[in-house]
Amino acid sequence: MLSKRDLLQASIAGLAATGLPIVNAEERGQDRAAAQGMSNVPPDWYGKEQMAFLIYPEFTALDMVGAYQMLTGLMGSTAHLIAKTKDPIVSDNGLTFVPSKTFDDCPKDLDILCVPGGASGTLAVMQDDSTLRFLKDRGSRARFVTSVCTGSLVLGAAGLLTGYKATSHWATVPLLPLFGANATKGRVVRDRNRVTAGGVTAGIDFGLSLVGQLRDRQYAECLQLMVEYAPEPPFDARNAGQGPTRSHKNDE
Amino acid sequence: MLSKRDLLQASIAGLAATGLPIVNAEERGQDRAAAQGMSNVPPDWYGKEQMAFLIYPEFTALDMVGAYQMLTGLMGSTAHLIAKTKDPIVSDNGLTFVPSKTFDDCPKDLDILCVPGGASGTLAVMQDDSTLRFLKDRGSRARFVTSVCTGSLVLGAAGLLTGYKATSHWATVPLLPLFGANATKGRVVRDRNRVTAGGVTAGIDFGLSLVGQLRDRQYAECLQLMVEYAPEPPFDARNAGQGPTRSHKNDE
Repeated sequence: MLSKRDLLQASIAGLAATGLPIVNAEERGQDRAAAQGMSNVPPDWYGKEQMAFLIYPEFTALDMVGAYQMLTGLMGSTAHLIAKTKDPIVSDNGLTFVPSKTFDDCPKDLDILCVPGGASGTLAVMQDDSTLRFLKDRGSRARFVTSVCTGSLVLGAAGLLTGYKATSHWATVPLLPLFGANATKGRVVRDRNRVTAGGVTAGIDFGLSLVGQLRDRQYAECLQLMVEYAPEPPFDARNAGQGPTRSHKNDE
Repeated sequence: MLSKRDLLQASIAGLAATGLPIVNAEERGQDRAAAQGMSNVPPDWYGKEQMAFLIYPEFTALDMVGAYQMLTGLMGSTAHLIAKTKDPIVSDNGLTFVPSKTFDDCPKDLDILCVPGGASGTLAVMQDDSTLRFLKDRGSRARFVTSVCTGSLVLGAAGLLTGYKATSHWATVPLLPLFGANATKGRVVRDRNRVTAGGVTAGIDFGLSLVGQLRDRQYAECLQLMVEYAPEPPFDARNAGQGPTRSHKNDE
């Protein structure tokens, strides 16, 4: 186990020498460590994951960005922001993103396929044939099929959660059985290669936990330090859908 | 105080009837509650805040999006994504955003001015005259002058933190005195109308706390439920810059 000071130094070295994000630029890759003389970085900290994040009109920006920020911390990985066309996509709070790839030119074999949620936009995309076809295809081969928030309903609509335990935004967990999924409460729910996260901010916990799985605990803790993930929620509404204080515990 | 069930119902009503984000679309506004028949929503839950989030090449996406997601939860508010021009801006992990306004057409009088951080891109923008002029001008009148992560260094470079307590990403807190700020450790640091947050994920805590200040605790807790902000970090690296376990506590 690295000491906290080692983690700190590794993090500073990472920030100063590479910047985790820079490593993800498509034109750069696994030999970045060598190029930058980071000879003391364990070689197995560099991967080559291909990751695709679906976006669509009125998706919830933080669902995607929280997971994206953590998963692009995987040194050597390549992240793609996928939409039906390359036209800018407006999220449900007005943030406008430019996709990097379309359904057609998205890599065929993905390590991580991730679908963020939303509200009315998500309902629409759950009924969009070309989106569902894309998800069915990539999801059939992806190493990890994942979602944040109501993104799990989109995976469900694409038939990708049948027979799997899965979660969603707490308000929509009860809908999961409509898609053959085993509705499960939890911040991050794993069943074989399906990893579904709870609402919005749960994408951060999901992303960081998958980084830990794909690298190791020390690596994930370096990333955690870099993004200063030591949350201090200023209020205490708690998650209504889980935990010992949940309001509908007796309704189950 | 609302009960947890009341919060839940209010949240569901909010999700179903308006969706917090929809309220922020610029063409809609304060009369949305009336239009949607939400007669049981307290009238003072609707505001008219004008909010500007600066973006620049290689900023850190989650710094901005975390704060943006929470602050656009202010019903009736209007959020602007500001850059020097309307050309798309690429963040430090490759996410590409389209600005909604430029320095020239950004509202003159802002309720919230927010600057996200980054690494090399932040160093560059700290030396960009037109950006600093924009920040000095809007910051001189804004109700709240705020930052996430190393965004505080940009505020500092614009002369907006002189004589104020402020924080930054833990790795850069020691740089704040270079700008006349009183370097202060903390997830969210407030001094009069300056509110600065720690690294990356601290933008969520900052945004939610400011929502609580601008509305009330019940409102903020509804928002907290909607974004399911009940974090469960899967690792325990802790924040190296603060808290009882910080590694350089004895160096101070």
